[in-house]
This record gives sequence, C-alpha cells and structure tokens, in this order.
Amino acid sequence: MTYCVGLRLNRGIVFASDTRTNAGFDNIAVFKKMHVWEWQGDRVIAILTAGNLAVTQAVVSLLDEQIKNGADDDGHTLQTVSTMFQAARLVGAALNDVQKSEGEALGLTAANFSASFILGGQIKGEEPRLFQIYNEGNFIEATDDTPFFQIGEHKYGKPILDRVAESHMRMGEAAKLVLLSFDSTLRSNLSVGMPIDLMIYRNGTFEVNDSRRIEQNDAYFLGLSDAWSNALRSAFAGLESYADSDTT
Amino acid sequence: MTYCVGLRLNRGIVFASDTRTNAGFDNIAVFKKMHVWEWQGDRVIAILTAGNLAVTQAVVSLLDEQIKNGADDDGHTLQTVSTMFQAARLVGAALNDVQKSEGEALGLTAANFSASFILGGQIKGEEPRLFQIYNEGNFIEATDDTPFFQIGEHKYGKPILDRVAESHMRMGEAAKLVLLSFDSTLRSNLSVGMPIDLMIYRNGTFEVNDSRRIEQNDAYFLGLSDAWSNALRSAFAGLESYADSDTT
Repeated sequence: MTYCVGLRLNRGIVFASDTRTNAGFDNIAVFKKMHVWEWQGDRVIAILTAGNLAVTQAVVSLLDEQIKNGADDDGHTLQTVSTMFQAARLVGAALNDVQKSEGEALGLTAANFSASFILGGQIKGEEPRLFQIYNEGNFIEATDDTPFFQIGEHKYGKPILDRVAESHMRMGEAAKLVLLSFDSTLRSNLSVGMPIDLMIYRNGTFEVNDSRRIEQNDAYFLGLSDAWSNALRSAFAGLESYADSDTT
Repeated sequence: MTYCVGLRLNRGIVFASDTRTNAGFDNIAVFKKMHVWEWQGDRVIAILTAGNLAVTQAVVSLLDEQIKNGADDDGHTLQTVSTMFQAARLVGAALNDVQKSEGEALGLTAANFSASFILGGQIKGEEPRLFQIYNEGNFIEATDDTPFFQIGEHKYGKPILDRVAESHMRMGEAAKLVLLSFDSTLRSNLSVGMPIDLMIYRNGTFEVNDSRRIEQNDAYFLGLSDAWSNALRSAFAGLESYADSDTT
C-alpha cells in the first residue's frame, strides 16, 4: 500500500508520501511516489501517487513526455496549462490513456489496476490549489472546509488530521501535523514504510521551498514520534477514569 | 459497518460495541451487537458481532436455542462447555451451521454474507480469555503481547490502542481507553454510531460487573471526548515545529 497526504493552507501546501511498494510481503521496495515539476517564477506542480505502480509510473512518464515533446492531443502540457484545474484534467486524461492502452493486458493478468493521485501547486495568476484525482480520472478540489486529501492507507492517520488541520496553520505546524499523521500510520500498518518524502510550497513563491527525504533515523522525526507518544500517554493519564470502577 | 473492541487485562475484560446498522445511507437502525450470558458464580460469556446482521443474529439465536433445548450435536452449550476454548469452537460451529443452511439463498441475492465475532469471558477453573472468531469459524486468542481485538471499522481507533493498551491497566483506565478508541472512530466514520454498549467483567467475580448503554448525551463520554480533543491539541501545540520554517 501507500500513504500520501496533501494539506492546503492559506500560506501554501504541504505534500508528503511514503515510499514503500510491495508485491506480496516478501517483495518490498522503495519507490518515490512524489513527483514535482518546477518552473521557477511561473509554476510549481506536484503529484502524489497511489495504486498500481505500473499505472502511476506510466501516467507520470506520459506527463513528462508531453512536456518534452510539446503537447498532448489538445496542445497542452503541465508547463502550458493556465490553471491547476486544467492540470487536473490533464492528469485525469493521462490516467484514462494509460488505462485504455494497457488495461486489456492488465485485466487479463488480473492485476490490481487502480490508481489515484493528489495534485497540487500554484500557477501564476491563481491561488495554490489542491485536487484528488480518482481512478476514473475525475477529481475534487480541497476547500477551507476540508483542507486535506489522503490517498492509500488513509484511516489510521485521519483522526489527528480531522482534529487539528486548519487553513490558517503555519507551514511548520502543518508539516509537523502531516508527519504525526504518518507516524500513526507507520505504527499501525506494515504496508506503509519509511523514508517519507516531504515538500513544502509557500503561496506566491513559485519555487519549491523545502524538499526533503526523511529517513528512518531522522533526528526530528524520531524526536517528534517519541514526544508525541509521551504526550499522548500523559494526556490519556490526565483524563478522568471511567466511573468509580477504578478501585481494581 | 460496526466497531467492537474487546480488551483483556490481568484484572478482567472490557467489551464495547456500537449499535449502528445500515443497509444504504438512508436505512439506518439501532441494533445491539453485544450479547451476554451470565450464570452467576459459574461463568460469564460475552459475544460482540460484526458483519451481516441476519447471519450474526442467527448465530446468537442458535446458541440461545442450544442453551434452552439442552445441546448442540455434541451435547454442548455455552452453559455446559468446560473452557472458553470450547465456547469459541461452539460459536465457530454455529457460524458454519448458519452459513451452510442459509448460504445458498443469501448467495443468490448477492448479500454480503460475512460475519466475525469477539468472544470473551470466564468459566470457573480458568482465567478470563478473549477470542476473535473469523468468518470461516476459526479463531485466535488474545495474549499479553496483543491484549485487544477489534472487529468492523477498526483502523481509526487502532493507533490509540496500539500506544496505550497494557495488560496491567486498571479497569477504569481500560474502559476510558476503549471509549477514546470509539471517539476517534465515531468522529471519522459515519457508519459507526452511538449509543455504545459497554460491559466490564472483573477476573474471578463470575458475574457482570458493569453493563451500561452510553447514549449520545452521556455526560462522562461527552466530557471525555472534549477533554481528549483539548489534550490532543495542546499536546500537538507543545511539540517542536518542523524545521525553522515556522516563520511564515
């Protein structure tokens, strides 16, 4: 499986993705699931991927080839579209293309053929925008009501996001929140694994502001994980016990 | 869906189950998913159920009829078996019976036909024991390494259990922990709903020690939920922010 989060704030967007892929429990590998295109001063576009690796890699390669070769059928690429909405349509169309061209063969071998994406970034003339693109190529956009999207193994890390995520958060706080959501997921599910790729994009900068691979032994992440465990346990201990049944 | 937890401690067992069943989003009802048999001074046996309601109700009815009519094919009932292991086999056999007798018709209507159970309690001569019974009728038993079982929509409420559950907990603390696990699940998933049925069994008492339905407006649960939210937010705020990127 996979775990990816995109969190859209007033100040920008935080992206994070794990790197574990597995075909069975004894065939585990590290693959980057975060792909960033940066044209400084004009646009930054990031994609996080979940699902069948052959499909998601093909989609990213297709988008890359469009940029290098100039265009898709309609003459657009991630470099030339004028809005993030158009970028989302481009990704959806690329997904449909891959599914059409490889779908029959993949269907024949009964491979799990689903894929989903988080797409976010900023194109000059717009605010930063964040989308979740489904397996069918259609998509939804994040709003202030629901500022984050998750794909992959999303349930373990959702409660902390549900409680804490707010559009007005500072970027450092938001990155901390996203990493805690990963920490909960990593502890409870083997199919999500370190390292974590983290990228921070700040509103109006039109460049990647912070991009880092957080390894197993990352001092900040280890400290955060420990401090959170301790804080949770002491928060738990501070709550009133059930009934008066605490005598035994 | 459903959410049920059984947590086995040195001092006894805490059981909890939600009560929401749904056939589509517009057909929601309240059904008890906790069934307790009590023969004071001799044994207390509780079952929590998840999955197809027709199947789980039929299994419970079958176990009840065996008790009233005297025996299953081998002459055993929940009242007469001498160990909780035998009780687990009885439940597994009842599940297989129901699946055999109603499976064909249910299969024809494409109903989701799966069911799973948490079974726990104490029979005189044994320590309290806790089992998870799968759809196939086979089962596993909780140990000190993994003192809890969850069935149904289990992922949201697992991180807090993973971090805090310990065999040496006091019963009141354990009940608090189980209710917090429900709180996380209720907040993130609509298919799990109040009220919650809670039952506490203390080692060596051979009677139900505390059995309560926790309603939507339960003062303790509401207070716990609020206090936990506040404690989580302040624990979050107390952790070091990511990098020095907190300036914007």
